[in-house]
Amino acid sequence: MISSKTNEVVISSRIRLARNLQDFAFPARLTEEKAKQVLNKVADCIVALGGFKVYVMQKLDYYDSMVMQEKHLISNKLVENPSGAVLLNEDETVSIMVNEEDHIRAQCILEGLELEQAYRIISDIEDEITKNIDLAFDQNLGYLTACITNVGTGMRASCMMFLPGLTLSGNMTELVNYASSKGLTIRGAFGEGSNSEGYMYQISNATSLGLSEREIIGRVKEAVEQISAIELAEREKLAKNSPILIKDRVFRAWGLLTNAYTLSDKEFLKLIGDLKLGMYLNIIRLKTPQLVTKLTFQCMQHSMAKISGKHLTQEQIEVYRAEYVAHMLKSKRI
Amino acid sequence: MISSKTNEVVISSRIRLARNLQDFAFPARLTEEKAKQVLNKVADCIVALGGFKVYVMQKLDYYDSMVMQEKHLISNKLVENPSGAVLLNEDETVSIMVNEEDHIRAQCILEGLELEQAYRIISDIEDEITKNIDLAFDQNLGYLTACITNVGTGMRASCMMFLPGLTLSGNMTELVNYASSKGLTIRGAFGEGSNSEGYMYQISNATSLGLSEREIIGRVKEAVEQISAIELAEREKLAKNSPILIKDRVFRAWGLLTNAYTLSDKEFLKLIGDLKLGMYLNIIRLKTPQLVTKLTFQCMQHSMAKISGKHLTQEQIEVYRAEYVAHMLKSKRI
Repeated sequence: MISSKTNEVVISSRIRLARNLQDFAFPARLTEEKAKQVLNKVADCIVALGGFKVYVMQKLDYYDSMVMQEKHLISNKLVENPSGAVLLNEDETVSIMVNEEDHIRAQCILEGLELEQAYRIISDIEDEITKNIDLAFDQNLGYLTACITNVGTGMRASCMMFLPGLTLSGNMTELVNYASSKGLTIRGAFGEGSNSEGYMYQISNATSLGLSEREIIGRVKEAVEQISAIELAEREKLAKNSPILIKDRVFRAWGLLTNAYTLSDKEFLKLIGDLKLGMYLNIIRLKTPQLVTKLTFQCMQHSMAKISGKHLTQEQIEVYRAEYVAHMLKSKRI
Repeated sequence: MISSKTNEVVISSRIRLARNLQDFAFPARLTEEKAKQVLNKVADCIVALGGFKVYVMQKLDYYDSMVMQEKHLISNKLVENPSGAVLLNEDETVSIMVNEEDHIRAQCILEGLELEQAYRIISDIEDEITKNIDLAFDQNLGYLTACITNVGTGMRASCMMFLPGLTLSGNMTELVNYASSKGLTIRGAFGEGSNSEGYMYQISNATSLGLSEREIIGRVKEAVEQISAIELAEREKLAKNSPILIKDRVFRAWGLLTNAYTLSDKEFLKLIGDLKLGMYLNIIRLKTPQLVTKLTFQCMQHSMAKISGKHLTQEQIEVYRAEYVAHMLKSKRI
């Protein structure tokens, strides 16, 4: 019962483990040859599992690597490392970066509030790895990592949350402080500087030391469920107390998404956020609601360029995005 | 040839004459009884012409008087005068205010650049008046008026102009200064403070002394024709140099006009201005282009309230306007 309502707020859950090989220096201090050895060792374990493909950053097309970044499958830091590589399973729920900040950064992203399930999947992969590879581990500290914030479990548990109610009611600052007091971090999901593009936020554990994996997941999950309940209450409050304001916001978003001649990614995310809020509040209905989430990824900068199949300037991408979005949405309104 | 293109810029032409009766003090110093005598004398002349109706301000419904103000048929000053009245002909092209700042303020408004024709109509009416009434006239000064800026011909010749090209290219300030050097005044047509609501401006002669009526009209007409030519060139330049920006502006205006849930009069005028620019540049086409001008008057604050047939709050008027505009426009796009 919790899950169906909570999933209106929790877009996805992510578990990430940082691991390093015992007999190798951390990637920042590793020779290219040694880095290659690390990659070979890890790839051998993972490919044996079946269903994974290896992408070496140096051989990857610029656009493809940017698209992977937009999908949160790899980081900018990985692209910059000449020995960086990523292993992806077919549905891209599991991504294993090799030679990023640590030798291994394995993550699993699942839709909705599914932290335990994501942890199970990533644990199984870790078990496979440890069958053949000795990991850097200290009896007192736990797993050793390049950055001390990851020492211990080497785990980060996070959820991507859609928080229009808390944002529009002006309660985000309070929430960020509350989360901080609980050892959790909240930040805007799109772009570092802009805190609330499309009302999307990421909540995660701030440190990975001193608690077990189960405890960390439990804390994040508990906070996410609390925030979800508050968020949904705020949405109802907005709809009740400011119906004109909310309806206007939603219908204007629709009007611009289906009519603008050019759309920046920033504005697109904002408008899609308003549309999603309107769909939740039954102000506006689409034949295929899931289309909106799909569009969000398709319309990111480089994914859009890739879809167009052309080499487009920044200006041309924004015109293409507007046309694409209008085309995809226009006939879908009920 | 000039006229069809010029009329894309000149919305309407207006001639206004200020006249006073010889044997009466100016309205500000007039007793109520004397003011009534003035009204009776003027009304007798005008009603004899046929086709005119008399509206006494004190007996007029609040909304009706506000609607008349929005149509520029009467002034706020007239409403405030307890002895104020207006005589209107059937199509409302001629309005004769009695006991405003002067005893008589007679105006004729015609569509397009029609200053001479408007002057002819208002002159004929003046001739009728002078058959029965002695007007305050000085051999040296000309017609005497309550405010010295009107002394002389007592005439103001003005045109309402739609200047999106000059506004968007940032050349309005220069134009205002140029006009001022020619003894002309340009000001925003809607609201005193806001200079360019909907890109609408009024250009008129600054003083009425020292030139004949024909000369004043000639000067205003010449300036209006010059400005029209520059305005049309600026529009072409914008379309050529900033096609994305202009198309985006036009299509966003359409998106908001047909989707917003609430629309202030200020925003409405802005969006309608963008839509009209888009229609001129063939970026967007409507089955019934003249609808846009009609909407502009219908959607003014009090006209809108009257159309709704209900007593609406400010907030409700803005919601009603959005619904009305969307309804009127939606099916009209080609």
